[in-house]
Amino acid sequence: MGLTLTHKILESHLVSGKLAPGEEIAIKIDQTLTQDATGTMAYLEFEAIGINRVKTELSVSYVDHNILQTDFKNADDHRFLLSIAKRYGIWFSKPGNGICHQVHLERFAKPGKTLLGSDSHTPTAGGCGMIAIGAGGLDVAMAMAEYPFYLKMPKIVGVYLYGKLQPWVSARDVALYLLSKLTVKGGRNKILEYFGPGIKTLTVPERATICNLGTETGATTSIFPSDELTFFWLKAQNREEDYIELKPDEDAQYDEIIEIDLSKIEPLCACPSSPDNVKKVAEEAGKPVAQVIIGSCANSSLKDLLIVSKILENHKVHPDVSFEINPGSIQVLENLVALSAFKNLLKAGARIHQCGCLGCIGMGQAPPTNSISLRTFTRNFPGRSGTSPDFIYLVSPETATASAIRGVITDPRELGDYPEIIIPEKFIINDSMLIPPLPEEEAQKVEIIRGPNIVPLPPFDPLPENLEGIFLLKVGDNITTDHIMPAGAQILPLRSNLPAISEYVYKNLDPEFSKKALEIKNKGLTIGIVGGENYGQGSSREHAALAPRYLGVRIKLAKSFARIHRSNLINFGILPLVFEKKEDYNQIEQGDVFFIKDIRKALLEGEKKIKIIIKGKGEISVILDLSERERNSVLAGSLLNLAKK
Amino acid sequence: MGLTLTHKILESHLVSGKLAPGEEIAIKIDQTLTQDATGTMAYLEFEAIGINRVKTELSVSYVDHNILQTDFKNADDHRFLLSIAKRYGIWFSKPGNGICHQVHLERFAKPGKTLLGSDSHTPTAGGCGMIAIGAGGLDVAMAMAEYPFYLKMPKIVGVYLYGKLQPWVSARDVALYLLSKLTVKGGRNKILEYFGPGIKTLTVPERATICNLGTETGATTSIFPSDELTFFWLKAQNREEDYIELKPDEDAQYDEIIEIDLSKIEPLCACPSSPDNVKKVAEEAGKPVAQVIIGSCANSSLKDLLIVSKILENHKVHPDVSFEINPGSIQVLENLVALSAFKNLLKAGARIHQCGCLGCIGMGQAPPTNSISLRTFTRNFPGRSGTSPDFIYLVSPETATASAIRGVITDPRELGDYPEIIIPEKFIINDSMLIPPLPEEEAQKVEIIRGPNIVPLPPFDPLPENLEGIFLLKVGDNITTDHIMPAGAQILPLRSNLPAISEYVYKNLDPEFSKKALEIKNKGLTIGIVGGENYGQGSSREHAALAPRYLGVRIKLAKSFARIHRSNLINFGILPLVFEKKEDYNQIEQGDVFFIKDIRKALLEGEKKIKIIIKGKGEISVILDLSERERNSVLAGSLLNLAKK
Repeated sequence: MGLTLTHKILESHLVSGKLAPGEEIAIKIDQTLTQDATGTMAYLEFEAIGINRVKTELSVSYVDHNILQTDFKNADDHRFLLSIAKRYGIWFSKPGNGICHQVHLERFAKPGKTLLGSDSHTPTAGGCGMIAIGAGGLDVAMAMAEYPFYLKMPKIVGVYLYGKLQPWVSARDVALYLLSKLTVKGGRNKILEYFGPGIKTLTVPERATICNLGTETGATTSIFPSDELTFFWLKAQNREEDYIELKPDEDAQYDEIIEIDLSKIEPLCACPSSPDNVKKVAEEAGKPVAQVIIGSCANSSLKDLLIVSKILENHKVHPDVSFEINPGSIQVLENLVALSAFKNLLKAGARIHQCGCLGCIGMGQAPPTNSISLRTFTRNFPGRSGTSPDFIYLVSPETATASAIRGVITDPRELGDYPEIIIPEKFIINDSMLIPPLPEEEAQKVEIIRGPNIVPLPPFDPLPENLEGIFLLKVGDNITTDHIMPAGAQILPLRSNLPAISEYVYKNLDPEFSKKALEIKNKGLTIGIVGGENYGQGSSREHAALAPRYLGVRIKLAKSFARIHRSNLINFGILPLVFEKKEDYNQIEQGDVFFIKDIRKALLEGEKKIKIIIKGKGEISVILDLSERERNSVLAGSLLNLAKK
Repeated sequence: MGLTLTHKILESHLVSGKLAPGEEIAIKIDQTLTQDATGTMAYLEFEAIGINRVKTELSVSYVDHNILQTDFKNADDHRFLLSIAKRYGIWFSKPGNGICHQVHLERFAKPGKTLLGSDSHTPTAGGCGMIAIGAGGLDVAMAMAEYPFYLKMPKIVGVYLYGKLQPWVSARDVALYLLSKLTVKGGRNKILEYFGPGIKTLTVPERATICNLGTETGATTSIFPSDELTFFWLKAQNREEDYIELKPDEDAQYDEIIEIDLSKIEPLCACPSSPDNVKKVAEEAGKPVAQVIIGSCANSSLKDLLIVSKILENHKVHPDVSFEINPGSIQVLENLVALSAFKNLLKAGARIHQCGCLGCIGMGQAPPTNSISLRTFTRNFPGRSGTSPDFIYLVSPETATASAIRGVITDPRELGDYPEIIIPEKFIINDSMLIPPLPEEEAQKVEIIRGPNIVPLPPFDPLPENLEGIFLLKVGDNITTDHIMPAGAQILPLRSNLPAISEYVYKNLDPEFSKKALEIKNKGLTIGIVGGENYGQGSSREHAALAPRYLGVRIKLAKSFARIHRSNLINFGILPLVFEKKEDYNQIEQGDVFFIKDIRKALLEGEKKIKIIIKGKGEISVILDLSERERNSVLAGSLLNLAKK
């Protein structure tokens, strides 16, 4: 039986387990990446593990999420991260250098390798033929300390591409098309592996866009083969030596197949307020637009900005529109300048921001009240823009630019001939803002610089014999980690300070949650959360587990969980319990008192089902589907307690 | 007797009064400018006056101060300002187009004209031979409605420049030299008029830097003649037709003369935390630097960035330094690109921000805790950076760049030969982000768009017959408007919402001030503030008068006042009282109860002195030095009440 590309890479990295869907496997991690919003915590954890130097082939610490620096906290985080990088043998990407995934694709992504990143869009590097997975910070810290990464072997979905995109249709539209089919939960426990004749029509940055947005389907990761286009990309980056050819066997067996005729895809948009609320742009055309932004790890490559520049050659931005460009990296910006393409943006009236995530993570660029904003970003979850309610559409750079010109949502095909662009064979390479690791001897002498907002992690107590507590919150389907632990300009700067950030847990669902939780915790009780399907989708932020845990949450009971969040819960000793009968969800009300007897015993004995007694309502049965490693983590109170031993 | 240049321009604009120092004069205003932080309030006031269209030759509404958009408030302000501009015949400079003073110098400044701006650095345009004065928003609103601008005729100080700057010494150092002589209050009630052979060695943007920083001496404004270098500037801007030659008479009589030998000036820096805390860079050399920023209305011209670029041609930024560039305008950026100078910044590892004020007004770019930040900004008042305590040095672009390369404060002369740059004879002109006024008929139809944070002004009650109240706060010398009404990322977005922003009045001096004040106000008492010398220096923000007034402040008693703040107090019905005997300052304590009998009567009768009874301490005598117009404003409770009649 022929192997998929995914199988080949996983097999060469397999530490334990069997490559059969649903089995727990452990894989060796070659590279890690962190960004500042998850990184400060990840490195606090790495320090707690107590290793002298990272043991990966390559680890990079990027600063891209929170670069507004509205007070000392942000700047202190950057200095902390720089000193950590110097101390532990890690590359450091300075603030302003660009978005982690764009820079990683340019400078470090390697076909055939594995990458674990504390950011949910880590699969972007799948565009370069590597297995790149998003995870919680602690998993990444463990990987830096040479622990393997554990996951349930996903199903491998072969996405068969054929045909060729029509003019004005681009990689974003492919991703939106797939989202319209799979929804935000259709990719869970799956890896999307692209193959077929259509892949030859997509360059590495386009493949990266598709892999990036695969995250929004809930997929574990996405991957393209490494072929002559990958070689072209690596050569353009002066990295020919990193190239190897990698493809599935001709007769590779996929667990599922999805077929996509690229030539049939039209310009699409994700309407407010979910990435899978997809419509044709033509259906939404004519609505006035106040803001348009090109940027984010999904769509800010040189190719993207060259197209935007070319479209703008003969157009001006509409006076009522704030048209904003966040270049993906300094490399993108420098090449744009060298190709005489940057000036078109300026001439047309674009507003040029520093290279970084910015508005995509709600750090600035909030749109005006009651106005439509079009963005080439990754997510349009409600309120993530910083304005609430918001009306955010996710679109391609082509649709964004056409709409910025007209001042209303515009199908880009209305602009006439699709502009031709030429991608250079050699990029200008500039690593001035990438600080290489120090030699070990020098590194030992580096002192870690901690600002007052960088607070050490609290201890995590082991799981008690019984759990008694209150279901303090009950929520519906598709709850995101943005709901659990919001980001944005006020909260993101607290990422290194667990007690402070915990005040904002579930803030938009129940502003009093944090206060109530601490009161319950102080009475010696624990807290439960009840959720629907796909609980914890979206960002990889482990604060969505850490902060509730700090407040006393010990169980989360849902119809199903998103992968990364589930792992984060286990890593910090919260039990992810699944309803045996989904209809039991309806039985539980907010405020119900629960009791779980002998929970330690159940875990120690590897029981797969337990009973929860709901006071005044009787028992319900829930599934306790944890591997031995996971059970140990929950029993210990945190994976960190195990790692330290 | 020969006339100074200042006299010539004032005479041609004189509406009433006599051009003798200390006399109240009224002058016609040709141009106005606002920025977003003061502009929203200024236009709310303009609306309250009830005029159909601005009556100036030119009025421009810039958006440059608060462009982070961390939530809806900021973006709503921008939309409000755009709709106001469209409705009332005003130019609109979109966010990202650049800093008001830089753009104004490029596109609108005209020799021989008068400009009133709701920003204290409006004198920047004096570099182009115009009388450009900073004022409160209401004064600017009145000017847009064709009211003349009233001021006390300042003394005219002739600043005689001779010699030529040494290599590595630039306009910033001239300004710092003057600040070291005059201090932050030495320029009060003065206009600094530059003349002498040295002026021919300074281009218009360099002159603009010097005029800009003249604000920090407390000067009413600064001005250079309009000569062949002015023509060169205007021609480069495609504005030859705006040129007229303008200079003082050969035998012009100045009230004072200051002589400066340009060749004797060395690289200087303003040390923490006042612009007049000036030392030689060499004295501070060697201290490690965490952040270096080139930007602000003082030093972000094409010339400044060309020098920076040239220096960086053969250097890299130090790994430990965040080296940040805030270009002054899109024009600067575009020309920098066209001259192949932008790429040097990228190659060296600079972080490129959008065009605007940013960190200079504390909107982002806060430095790390306990670290030194070097900036080419205008002010280093404590905490204005967003970090507290902070260690901010104000320096030239040359010193900034040298220090960014070395990672420690560095005298730029250590870098060897001073680079040569060529200023183009023709700039690339790009007005895509400057929206021209609509024709009147079209303008009438425009609807003003107000977000929920844009709150109409409250009514201002007339002055009561007697004033009884409490001195709720006593402060020292050189209190800035940043002390009174702080800015920064948290507070600046509230500029359109008086009740909300009032909660932050004197926040860093007494966090409870606002609460206490409202309690006193609700008892029917008024509030007094006691200050030292130069009370209210710094920014022109009228919120430093408006917000205390909203909280019930009716008198401010000080040893002396800064000009713009004094006017703002009068505009909003607060009495600026001056100690007759400075030693009486020592008599009053915070919490003292005061009583002023028949204060209305005293004002109506034009009395120049009144008595304040301090409970339990007897009487003190204070000077009530107001013109008739000023008395009427205070009596009415606000100039706005008069303007409406």
